[in-house]
Amino acid sequence: MNALPQPVVELIAALRRLPGVGPRSAERMALHVVQGGDGDVAEALSAALLHAVKTVTTCERCGALTEAQPCAFCADTRRDGATLCVVERATDILSIEKSGTYRGRYHVLGGRIAPLDGVGPEELRIGELVQRLEPEGVREIILALTADVEGDATGHYLAKVLAGRGVRVSRVAQGLPAGTGLDFADELTLSRAIEGRREMT
Amino acid sequence: MNALPQPVVELIAALRRLPGVGPRSAERMALHVVQGGDGDVAEALSAALLHAVKTVTTCERCGALTEAQPCAFCADTRRDGATLCVVERATDILSIEKSGTYRGRYHVLGGRIAPLDGVGPEELRIGELVQRLEPEGVREIILALTADVEGDATGHYLAKVLAGRGVRVSRVAQGLPAGTGLDFADELTLSRAIEGRREMT
Repeated sequence: MNALPQPVVELIAALRRLPGVGPRSAERMALHVVQGGDGDVAEALSAALLHAVKTVTTCERCGALTEAQPCAFCADTRRDGATLCVVERATDILSIEKSGTYRGRYHVLGGRIAPLDGVGPEELRIGELVQRLEPEGVREIILALTADVEGDATGHYLAKVLAGRGVRVSRVAQGLPAGTGLDFADELTLSRAIEGRREMT
Repeated sequence: MNALPQPVVELIAALRRLPGVGPRSAERMALHVVQGGDGDVAEALSAALLHAVKTVTTCERCGALTEAQPCAFCADTRRDGATLCVVERATDILSIEKSGTYRGRYHVLGGRIAPLDGVGPEELRIGELVQRLEPEGVREIILALTADVEGDATGHYLAKVLAGRGVRVSRVAQGLPAGTGLDFADELTLSRAIEGRREMT
């Protein structure tokens, strides 16, 4: 016999589709919700889920998550329109914004070139990127892609596509993460950190 | 400027009301949902939440989570009706069922005596427990309460209330958890384990 009522079992299955939620934590969440100790948590969460997927879309210009067209980044005139930061996913923008060091605009590719997963350049928003260069007067492009083989391949492909169009193309540095000693860095990170060394004098 | 659209911020706040969900994991869940890589996860979770809180209630007799009255435990005639296991919360039943060693029925107190939190015996389902003894022919009561001061107080109170009513009252053993050595046990656990020692010959 199942020790839990069927709707609770179904709620656990639905919660497990969230990232980072395993069987134990899904069970804990579901029981918390049905035991009702926290008032209207089910109703509030249910409404927030539907509202978010209904109203949040991606910016037609840069691909960021937004409610309005264009998004707040593209509409913000205080941002430097001559610089574009190219990221893989809309959520990468959040990480860069948190660092607080970038004041330009963004362009979301929608992924990276991964032939084994069937993702070629035509699946990514590369044509849209090229079309933004002239009307927006873009002069610099910073590639902020994942530091792995597929990120490297995507970076090289973009550098080739963007060559000869009057924009500087750079890629964010790879090296030791802040606060880490050499003993925690893997071989590839260390070799990238040495390749990317900067003169101090 | 907020890097995330307002509905996503609200979804993060709603997700944080689930137990064990911190700011980082709520953000990850919310972005996963609005980026829509997983189909109808928002709609499915929203529906499961509302369905669960609407249909799942507590058994009027024993207090277990159930869709029907009485619950599957109370209705199951193969279970030993002469034995009741008293637990604090409906979800404790799940833990005991998983152990697979108990075949009697249950009674949920709804908490434990905690004067500092304003929970006295009259807030608990103790009267309901006493009323079940005679009609159900209960002969044994196993108290499966938390192993702390308030659990002890609740256990002693129940033992007093149940004395002279023709039922045996026992409490689940306290001692070393399975798989742990003495070096990981705190002083109280060890002293309880020694007090509760069992003869081997």
